[in-house]
Amino acid sequence: MKKVHGGITAAKGFRADGLHCGIKSGRRPDLALIASDHPCSSAALFTTNRAAAAPVLITRKYARTGRLQAIVANSGSANACTGNEGLAIAEQMAAIAGKQLGLPPSRVAVASTGKIGAPPSLKALQTGIPRAVFALSAKGSRKAAAAIMTTDTFTKESAVQVRILRKTVTIGGIAKGSGMIHPDMATMLAFLTTDARISSTRLQKMLKAAVDSSFNMVSVDGETSTNDMVVCLANGTAENESIEKSPAARGAFQAALDAVCTELAKMIARDGEGATKLAEIRVTRAKSENAARKIARRISQSPLVKTAFLGEDANWGRIASAAGSAGVKFDPGRVNIFFDNVAVVQNGVGLGPAAEKKAARVLGKNSFTMTLDLRSGKHSATAWTCDLTYEYIRINAAYRS
Amino acid sequence: MKKVHGGITAAKGFRADGLHCGIKSGRRPDLALIASDHPCSSAALFTTNRAAAAPVLITRKYARTGRLQAIVANSGSANACTGNEGLAIAEQMAAIAGKQLGLPPSRVAVASTGKIGAPPSLKALQTGIPRAVFALSAKGSRKAAAAIMTTDTFTKESAVQVRILRKTVTIGGIAKGSGMIHPDMATMLAFLTTDARISSTRLQKMLKAAVDSSFNMVSVDGETSTNDMVVCLANGTAENESIEKSPAARGAFQAALDAVCTELAKMIARDGEGATKLAEIRVTRAKSENAARKIARRISQSPLVKTAFLGEDANWGRIASAAGSAGVKFDPGRVNIFFDNVAVVQNGVGLGPAAEKKAARVLGKNSFTMTLDLRSGKHSATAWTCDLTYEYIRINAAYRS
Repeated sequence: MKKVHGGITAAKGFRADGLHCGIKSGRRPDLALIASDHPCSSAALFTTNRAAAAPVLITRKYARTGRLQAIVANSGSANACTGNEGLAIAEQMAAIAGKQLGLPPSRVAVASTGKIGAPPSLKALQTGIPRAVFALSAKGSRKAAAAIMTTDTFTKESAVQVRILRKTVTIGGIAKGSGMIHPDMATMLAFLTTDARISSTRLQKMLKAAVDSSFNMVSVDGETSTNDMVVCLANGTAENESIEKSPAARGAFQAALDAVCTELAKMIARDGEGATKLAEIRVTRAKSENAARKIARRISQSPLVKTAFLGEDANWGRIASAAGSAGVKFDPGRVNIFFDNVAVVQNGVGLGPAAEKKAARVLGKNSFTMTLDLRSGKHSATAWTCDLTYEYIRINAAYRS
Repeated sequence: MKKVHGGITAAKGFRADGLHCGIKSGRRPDLALIASDHPCSSAALFTTNRAAAAPVLITRKYARTGRLQAIVANSGSANACTGNEGLAIAEQMAAIAGKQLGLPPSRVAVASTGKIGAPPSLKALQTGIPRAVFALSAKGSRKAAAAIMTTDTFTKESAVQVRILRKTVTIGGIAKGSGMIHPDMATMLAFLTTDARISSTRLQKMLKAAVDSSFNMVSVDGETSTNDMVVCLANGTAENESIEKSPAARGAFQAALDAVCTELAKMIARDGEGATKLAEIRVTRAKSENAARKIARRISQSPLVKTAFLGEDANWGRIASAAGSAGVKFDPGRVNIFFDNVAVVQNGVGLGPAAEKKAARVLGKNSFTMTLDLRSGKHSATAWTCDLTYEYIRINAAYRS
């Protein structure tokens, strides 16, 4: 597997664009379009929030066929809590894009992100979508990535290539995250494309596995959103033989999909609202994978742990306490805790001020790993989070003002 | 029912004291003692955190008899994650207090709060506890309340009197909260006393009900702690007849217990770390009480809702989104949302900028009610929370420095 450039347009036969159509103020890009030149298999995952936004309701319906071939997404308005007007606008987005691309509306995924409460301007979309279709480019990934940003501070793109059954297969993607990021994919959009030939049923399974160990292991503030969506389009232009009969081929494809999703997920954690540090939370030797994940997620969501990271304080008591509240049985008297390779707790007991001082230096870095070794089983999990800062409060107290 | 003064020593036959014994720096009080002059029935509830602190492990064991008669509590050290040394010190605290009071150690509840990792100084406790026993006073509630504070900014006391079967019964209590407050009683101590005559079995049931609708409905930062404990002692000196045969008497006692717990819980929310506002979160017309509670708790824990309160922004989209992520089914298209009596959402759709401007004025107050009316059933629940502020970050990034 090797990393390549090109993000969402790295795979053959995909084009993208991003532009300003008039939903956001100023000239900031607010409309992204991604399309395959050929029919696709597709897979998609959606927020579990009960107040799911209009584009989620529409795309969930269209995705059932496994034949999505294009994605139209806007930022600046979440089109959530917008009633029937919002539903009509989400349908219109798919219809306008479909018409311009020569596709039925039901082949077009619709996504929105931004403020909740008012739908995006239909007029802006009516002129913007045709312009985006006209500008579609095999080098358009960066523009599309920029057009889905809200409080994100940098674009998020990733792509890898892997050999599968004697063919080169490319998987690429873009994402947006920032606030309200949380397991179960809160206000997070990720779009993926691949030239692999793969059935939509198989792709759905593999996408679910990749998302469970990547986007669902990221926490910025414990919120889950109305708008989250992960969509993957596969257009088959790599012309690989079927991966159904080859466990090795499936393993290689899963690893590549995992790699793209994990890189995007880590970018989302690093770009958490107001974040200054990326923390990798590893839980090792748990009794089950589920137990390891629960504990890793719980630690990654703890405001007390996250403020300690900001304060560069190796406050392992907060980590032990967060782990203890994850609803998973373990023996606190057996655990070891490390910051990178500096031990601060052995057999559940602190190693004292000298060890903590050394660990505080690890916390001074802009990226580090915290490991909680439960010493009670064989399973591990990794989550990613950021520090909780004054800037997070400023951004969110002022977001609509 | 009427409110009375006196907190934990309002009920007949209880005395208390609080003093500085040397666990905290400076001269800040760090040791509280509460004792009944007569044998008691008792009830107790404990944290669900798996990394429960030494005093929780000891008191959980002693509480099983339902005969606790005194409480010794320190602040400055949580005595959590302290291994066998911590357990020995917690046992010593009960033994020293018991010896001074003429009670078996198993009649003494032990509680600790403060930093995790190092046990409190045994030497300080050995001299401090006898001094506290000597100073016990029927007017000692305020001192005891002060001695259990950590980052709390004010003491928390409450007491009420109620007529039960022709006798005057008093219930009073003290609490500490501040950081790490959350449903399931995270780092929260509450001690209650009453002169009612009541069996420990009945008291346990009624205490559980009172805690479920008060302390377990408070959220400051979504953390659950290693040290939470609620203990209630009943010494029977009111000489009321048994409440077992009188539903009316039980109702009156439950209402009085609920009132004391709710007042203390609201004080905890108002005194949340860095808080400037107390918000009451009401969820009405839900399909079940459990559904109403889940949604109220979820909203009260949302950092995005809590930062919007700080920004005095009637950002109802964040409330709808938080409610949607509570894991409870409801129809977002039916809900109404109010700030005090100002409607901002009707039938799931926003009422526009004029309504939100009016609601923003409500949010400018230091105490207000947010109501989410689900319009789908008959059940309600109330939670309490505070705004999330820069000061919360400052306190917690610097707590150990």
